[in-house]
Amino acid sequence: MMASASRLNLSNFHRPPPSTTIAELKPTFTPRTQPTKPTPDSDATPSGPEPRKLKPSPQLNRWSRARAIRSGRKLDRPVSRTKAWEMDPPARSPETEVLQSPPREREDDRELAPGKTIYMVSDGTGWTAEHSVNAALGQFDYCLVDRGCPVNTHLFSGIDDVERLLEIIKQAAKEGAMLVYTLADNSMAESARQACRLWGVPSTDILSPITEAISSHLGVSPSGLPRGAPGRNFPLSEEYFQRIEAIEFTIKQDDGALPQNLQKADIILAGVSRTGKTPLSIYLAQKGYKVANVPLVMGVALPKMLFEVDPEKVFGLTINPVVLQTIRRSRAKTLGFGDDLSSNYSGMDHVRKELEFASRIFAQNPAWPVIEVTGKAIEETAAVVLRLHQDRKNKCSMPRISKRY
Amino acid sequence: MMASASRLNLSNFHRPPPSTTIAELKPTFTPRTQPTKPTPDSDATPSGPEPRKLKPSPQLNRWSRARAIRSGRKLDRPVSRTKAWEMDPPARSPETEVLQSPPREREDDRELAPGKTIYMVSDGTGWTAEHSVNAALGQFDYCLVDRGCPVNTHLFSGIDDVERLLEIIKQAAKEGAMLVYTLADNSMAESARQACRLWGVPSTDILSPITEAISSHLGVSPSGLPRGAPGRNFPLSEEYFQRIEAIEFTIKQDDGALPQNLQKADIILAGVSRTGKTPLSIYLAQKGYKVANVPLVMGVALPKMLFEVDPEKVFGLTINPVVLQTIRRSRAKTLGFGDDLSSNYSGMDHVRKELEFASRIFAQNPAWPVIEVTGKAIEETAAVVLRLHQDRKNKCSMPRISKRY
Repeated sequence: MMASASRLNLSNFHRPPPSTTIAELKPTFTPRTQPTKPTPDSDATPSGPEPRKLKPSPQLNRWSRARAIRSGRKLDRPVSRTKAWEMDPPARSPETEVLQSPPREREDDRELAPGKTIYMVSDGTGWTAEHSVNAALGQFDYCLVDRGCPVNTHLFSGIDDVERLLEIIKQAAKEGAMLVYTLADNSMAESARQACRLWGVPSTDILSPITEAISSHLGVSPSGLPRGAPGRNFPLSEEYFQRIEAIEFTIKQDDGALPQNLQKADIILAGVSRTGKTPLSIYLAQKGYKVANVPLVMGVALPKMLFEVDPEKVFGLTINPVVLQTIRRSRAKTLGFGDDLSSNYSGMDHVRKELEFASRIFAQNPAWPVIEVTGKAIEETAAVVLRLHQDRKNKCSMPRISKRY
Repeated sequence: MMASASRLNLSNFHRPPPSTTIAELKPTFTPRTQPTKPTPDSDATPSGPEPRKLKPSPQLNRWSRARAIRSGRKLDRPVSRTKAWEMDPPARSPETEVLQSPPREREDDRELAPGKTIYMVSDGTGWTAEHSVNAALGQFDYCLVDRGCPVNTHLFSGIDDVERLLEIIKQAAKEGAMLVYTLADNSMAESARQACRLWGVPSTDILSPITEAISSHLGVSPSGLPRGAPGRNFPLSEEYFQRIEAIEFTIKQDDGALPQNLQKADIILAGVSRTGKTPLSIYLAQKGYKVANVPLVMGVALPKMLFEVDPEKVFGLTINPVVLQTIRRSRAKTLGFGDDLSSNYSGMDHVRKELEFASRIFAQNPAWPVIEVTGKAIEETAAVVLRLHQDRKNKCSMPRISKRY
């Protein structure tokens, strides 16, 4: 049996050599926000004389080596490449940055420059950091990629030793990036704070404020263990099985399949083609709901069962005809429809008639709420569906989605 | 054409009457942290004499009425119910809380008590608040529901007027809950801050710190518009179409279907039954990757195409046999397998042999990384897969997942 390099590497992925402290790494790097010569009142350089060279760290060498093994490239790098690292600390001007960055890094980032950069670091999956940054960037979409002011994000997940953490922050400093982190391990979070202050990297701790608030509310201490940490196994809970069952159910029911199972669904979505039934179903399934979707197609009889189930769980989806036409045209192109088929599917006349057909069905079933999906992301429509679903189910005075942990 | 009550209600869902200010609402409520009689140095009660009654607000009446219309119940409430609201501000003792809460509220929350409560409020979908709270609660799983210290969360999404916001915070105060909020609208966030301070509700603002940090990094101001706000339509971007295509592709490829399409997949997962291929595929699809999964079944030939595609995109999944047996037993029960079929599927002998069969295939394909899924949540395995996928694709010196906004 032959052991593969990638497999060997994977098993070692989270197990680097013993970690280094910030103090040990500090002398190899000059922080961006610091004067060239330390002044008596500078508290950023307690360690005395000013080192000016940034050397390749053993950590980076290890990563590069691991990658080279995986990709089958030669390990020896030309001396000039190594020398590119031995440079001054970063400044914000783009020309200086090009000079200061090692050639290898430029190769990697070629496609992503220019634009502002956000680094995200996590000792767990990193999805919380990604989700929060994504939500916050939603506030700036008026100036993002389409308006010529792009943002590049880089997520580093499973960073569970301080040495790799500091390498990443150092790299963020070099690129003039900001850092967003979720570090369950408190000493890691503290290292990140210190390193960012020292190297002038603007940073935001996403996890600690909410964890501390919850800790004080519950009156217990956080475990400090990230998701996926040894000793923090994900339990095979009832919720786990329920979620998997919901996903499998939803896949099987997609696009009107198995109408006899409609009554087993928690939520049923009805709408014409390209109102987003499938992605919405899948999104809701991930949240543990069994979802069935029923396409409304002009001239095709609807399953009898749709009108026999509890109407409180059926939701109609509707959309602006012009937007629907745009989506259907894109779809017709992807599927390689010929002109005839395409005009029947995405012609404005057909689109309007099919939406009217759907409206009539909705009108005949007044207990179904009808949700307008125009201009809504899947997550947004999902929020509306679940709000109404919970409201109808729980009859609460303030519509809410409740969960128990 | 008959217009439905629920439909009418839906269209008005986000459009309440003109909003009220905190100052207007204040006199109807006595904060929990405040002395019964204001003292000269109390800055929490600048508005003078101390009102002691909490009256039903027009807002709550409106919600109750809306629900009553939907549910077909009579609108008139007995006077005694209304009277239950006219009580002192909340205290933490459970007996007092029972007295203080209106009967309707007790009915709703019946199943959820006891335990600590976290309220989440958002003027958007609320998923960021939910995701962050979920991540933070991961730090307390050693004492959550299974250990007898449950936490109840309540998510209020699409809260885009200050009047409803204040009602919710007031209710949080009554229940002794803490509040977590994501409010893109700055004046809403400020109202939440003030109300929480005034009514003694411990609170955490999830969105503002990261939004402010990004704003200062980009040098532009946030729009202040929540997702789904009028005028903030979700664009039909390339990414949008790509994500939908990925989800549809992944559903069609599930469970080894259409092996001829394997080469179109970005990621291929191979593993025995119940290693979580389907939920993992779907999770990755939501992130925009086209995923195919191929079941490894002893005695069933694998599709030739699996060995012809780029091996860099194939990932093997493996799992501890004892855990696999537990999952398969649960599965066999759900599917109603008879004893014979069940023992063949979840018998330890069969489980071990099938895992060995998979190991041999993985050994014959050393370029496939093999991921151990035991004790990992879907999100955790997904993080490992994507880290390796990006690393192999980009050959970066520091493994990362990069995106452009």
